[in-house]
Amino acid sequence: MTPERNGRLAVVLIDTRNPLNIGAVARAMSNFGFFDLRLVGPYELAQREAVSAVGAAELLRKAPVFGTLAEAVADCPLVVGATGLGHRVFQQRLLTLERAGRLLRRHLESAPAAILFGSEKFGLSNEDCAHCHWLLHIPTRAGHDSMNLAQAVAVCLYELIRSPARARREPAASERATGEDIQRLTELLEEVLQASGHTDYAKTKGADVKTQQLVRRLNLSARDASILTGMLRQIRWAIMNRGPR
Amino acid sequence: MTPERNGRLAVVLIDTRNPLNIGAVARAMSNFGFFDLRLVGPYELAQREAVSAVGAAELLRKAPVFGTLAEAVADCPLVVGATGLGHRVFQQRLLTLERAGRLLRRHLESAPAAILFGSEKFGLSNEDCAHCHWLLHIPTRAGHDSMNLAQAVAVCLYELIRSPARARREPAASERATGEDIQRLTELLEEVLQASGHTDYAKTKGADVKTQQLVRRLNLSARDASILTGMLRQIRWAIMNRGPR
Repeated sequence: MTPERNGRLAVVLIDTRNPLNIGAVARAMSNFGFFDLRLVGPYELAQREAVSAVGAAELLRKAPVFGTLAEAVADCPLVVGATGLGHRVFQQRLLTLERAGRLLRRHLESAPAAILFGSEKFGLSNEDCAHCHWLLHIPTRAGHDSMNLAQAVAVCLYELIRSPARARREPAASERATGEDIQRLTELLEEVLQASGHTDYAKTKGADVKTQQLVRRLNLSARDASILTGMLRQIRWAIMNRGPR
Repeated sequence: MTPERNGRLAVVLIDTRNPLNIGAVARAMSNFGFFDLRLVGPYELAQREAVSAVGAAELLRKAPVFGTLAEAVADCPLVVGATGLGHRVFQQRLLTLERAGRLLRRHLESAPAAILFGSEKFGLSNEDCAHCHWLLHIPTRAGHDSMNLAQAVAVCLYELIRSPARARREPAASERATGEDIQRLTELLEEVLQASGHTDYAKTKGADVKTQQLVRRLNLSARDASILTGMLRQIRWAIMNRGPR
């Protein structure tokens, strides 16, 4: 998701009762790069300035409050409701979050959308659902479907921003050892094993291949390869100069 | 994820300070079907019985408390730490959650694993990380990396249980109209349009194909198809019996 796409999504909280939850939602939004929070009839409006929203106080302060859901989503050509399954029968199409995420991401490339979350106790009412083009459902366990509000928001937003392409890049990983590092380390280890009279090297063929595989399985960082190389150099020196004890 | 696989994952909370967070984590675990919660040195141990864990009180009550991390993960051949990036340099390999999820799912098919979450304020210490085979990172916004503990747990567990195969099945959707329902409706609509002298039917070929496409685009539920069919029958009756006005 690009910032442009993220900017097209409004998170709409309807009749939220606990100001702490509004703060927690604001924090989750900020974590995932979404900043358009809209509140419809929050229960204790006065308190909302006071709630904790680590790192997202401004987002929370700027969140507009609407008297009706219709006003809150007036500019959104796509409105999606997040709901548990419960025992309700929905008139709208109901998609799992993963599928919903695909549709939403595509939509947000060109147009705004809103995701609605109902109150902690009752979720979305049938009236709220009537504003939705379709509904989404987080695939929770059938025996315990009711999620914490802010956790539900966090999971939905994560689904929107996750991307397989991004997953293939490893972020700021400790730098991997290069092939050259590994080769140097492997040769050194072979040399040390031979010099130390390791039985594999005395008696069997293919010992060097086994060693190579072993070193590669270690999947070393550049730093660890360097540390190990240093250790082996020291060991080699000891063997060459004093012989095995 | 099958229940067997879920059962092999331990969620380990280290030095958690706020009992409410432990309760919120328990709830998220129960939502996604994970039940093995382990606590290492929680800050206010005495309070943990008292915390709210909607629908997950038993899970919380049964969670063992360990004095050290080593004891908590003694039975786990794979230990993964969940961490923000911050400005730290990690010695371990660091994978995004999506990639980590693939590795964890595969591992859990046959063996137990643990995911570690550090304290709210400091996250995992370097000592904690030293117990980890690798680390995972939720792809948050660089400017606001610090997630609420229970939200982070919820997002990680969601990543483990989500599945593209499951996403293709629509859960308990309002029942879709069958091909027969749609065909009946389409024919009725064609009949009504012809009978009403709609210009498309009078002048152009392919009008019926357009109508078919239109009806399919509506993507109707069985119920709505039935309602529309009833309306059209009434309209047809009116046209046949009284003619267009």
